[in-house]
Amino acid sequence: MDRPGFIIEPSESQSTGLTLTQLLPSLVNAAKTLARPPISNFRVAAVGLSSSGRIFIGVNLEFPGLPLHHSVHAEQFLLTNLSLNNETNLHSFAVSAAPCGHCRQFLQELRGAPEIQILITSEPDPKFTPLSHFLPHRFSPHDLLPPRAPLLLEYHHNGLTLLRENGFCNNGHALREKSKSKLAAALEAANKSHAPYSDSPSGVALVDSGGKLYRGSYVESAAFNPSLGPVQAALVAFVAGGGGEYEEIVEAVLVEKDGTVVKQEQTAKLLLNSIAPNCQFETFLCHSQQSRKD
Amino acid sequence: MDRPGFIIEPSESQSTGLTLTQLLPSLVNAAKTLARPPISNFRVAAVGLSSSGRIFIGVNLEFPGLPLHHSVHAEQFLLTNLSLNNETNLHSFAVSAAPCGHCRQFLQELRGAPEIQILITSEPDPKFTPLSHFLPHRFSPHDLLPPRAPLLLEYHHNGLTLLRENGFCNNGHALREKSKSKLAAALEAANKSHAPYSDSPSGVALVDSGGKLYRGSYVESAAFNPSLGPVQAALVAFVAGGGGEYEEIVEAVLVEKDGTVVKQEQTAKLLLNSIAPNCQFETFLCHSQQSRKD
Ligand SMILES: [Zn+2]
Ligand SMILES: [Zn+2]
Repeated sequence: MDRPGFIIEPSESQSTGLTLTQLLPSLVNAAKTLARPPISNFRVAAVGLSSSGRIFIGVNLEFPGLPLHHSVHAEQFLLTNLSLNNETNLHSFAVSAAPCGHCRQFLQELRGAPEIQILITSEPDPKFTPLSHFLPHRFSPHDLLPPRAPLLLEYHHNGLTLLRENGFCNNGHALREKSKSKLAAALEAANKSHAPYSDSPSGVALVDSGGKLYRGSYVESAAFNPSLGPVQAALVAFVAGGGGEYEEIVEAVLVEKDGTVVKQEQTAKLLLNSIAPNCQFETFLCHSQQSRKD
Repeated sequence: MDRPGFIIEPSESQSTGLTLTQLLPSLVNAAKTLARPPISNFRVAAVGLSSSGRIFIGVNLEFPGLPLHHSVHAEQFLLTNLSLNNETNLHSFAVSAAPCGHCRQFLQELRGAPEIQILITSEPDPKFTPLSHFLPHRFSPHDLLPPRAPLLLEYHHNGLTLLRENGFCNNGHALREKSKSKLAAALEAANKSHAPYSDSPSGVALVDSGGKLYRGSYVESAAFNPSLGPVQAALVAFVAGGGGEYEEIVEAVLVEKDGTVVKQEQTAKLLLNSIAPNCQFETFLCHSQQSRKD
């Protein structure tokens, strides 16, 4: 089979003659070729069916030269891919290896998480089994949030606006015209960020050498550590969107909320310095209209 | 009940008249007072019984101003406390909230992990249940390592020696006499580090304003992201060893292996700068005798 893309439309999947539950595991092996794990060389792919009937692919990403918590797992990539494509939930997925505990926890950010059906293709007798079996007695968003708070993939608008009205970054530099579109993209990503536990939303926009723009929204986990950073989310957009080598990323903008307990700036810079040493990095702070006091 | 210490000897536990399985949950509430979670204000305590019959306490730590992946969970604190006290395995523990997926994965680094007995005190009818129930179809160290490779809490000696023989740090500064003991402590911690997946062992030594030394060894997880950084491990030693405020940490030494795929230096510096701004930080590279080529 050819290397697949990161989204498969219903029209394409129907042409295979397979049912959707047959199709998901059948795509896993080919999808593994899309993984980028230079540390472990352990390629993982997750192939998921969204609630709208489209198929999405997730693969693992690893970044040498940094601590391992920068890694993106296939299941996290899959959820980020769904978010980038405005999907509202995940129905089921097939995955090449047993999901680790970190991912079982990250998946809890979806509404109805216990009902997500999972099939592990490496098992002797693979069959779809609900996530509740893989993570019983779960620690869940509902242990910390009110029941109606929006969860991951549900509508978020954090009401963020930039701190300095006419376009100066935190170092006081006037904003060049061409920076405005990437700043707008990063602000939009921050407004979609799922960060209900710390109220510290953030977003990143990346620009590659061909001028193409990729955006990513920070996603928090109720268990804190499995949270996905905004650069990681934007790198999912880069990989899924046809981006080449990371060194081709030439500009990056981080937008994060001012005065919050979680701050991404230094860590975002560290990751980008490591994978794209020539990337120009800027941070803009913003505040939310709800909490604005001045 | 008074605030407990972080270790309870068999002589103390016998005086309570409770069986060990009654005693573990009875200590959870008092242990929660030892937690330091300024972001979530959600205190978690895990009270565990080692294979030697001593009782150890773990609590959660959170660090404002940084991404959430710096957090230390109560179960990670517990395992680090066991390691600091040369325990070789964990038999059972009681914990105040359902262990998150990240911790269920981190616990897999122990030999015989599926048999560890866990009781969640917040549940309606708490009883000890094996970890295999909480993380079935586990992703385990044995998916990546040979069966006889040492696991967490088993004997490790990574054979590391310093790169420059007579004591110069990476910036070429001659080593002051008083630095030698903390460098020796950090090297010893790096030699005990459990880092079989990346072969990137590291260790940290911290010195507080009273001159007291605390050491921590980096611990890797087979699932990468749940790995515990060397500064985090040393902060467990600091908290468990009677350390006060983090600002009282005045010196820190990181020892890490040269030329590896995982590098802790920048991230260690970021965390220490944030919690102990006056701490003087040095890094020393080392190599392993096995892999030495020169
Ligand atoms: Zn995972
Ligand atoms: Zn946990």
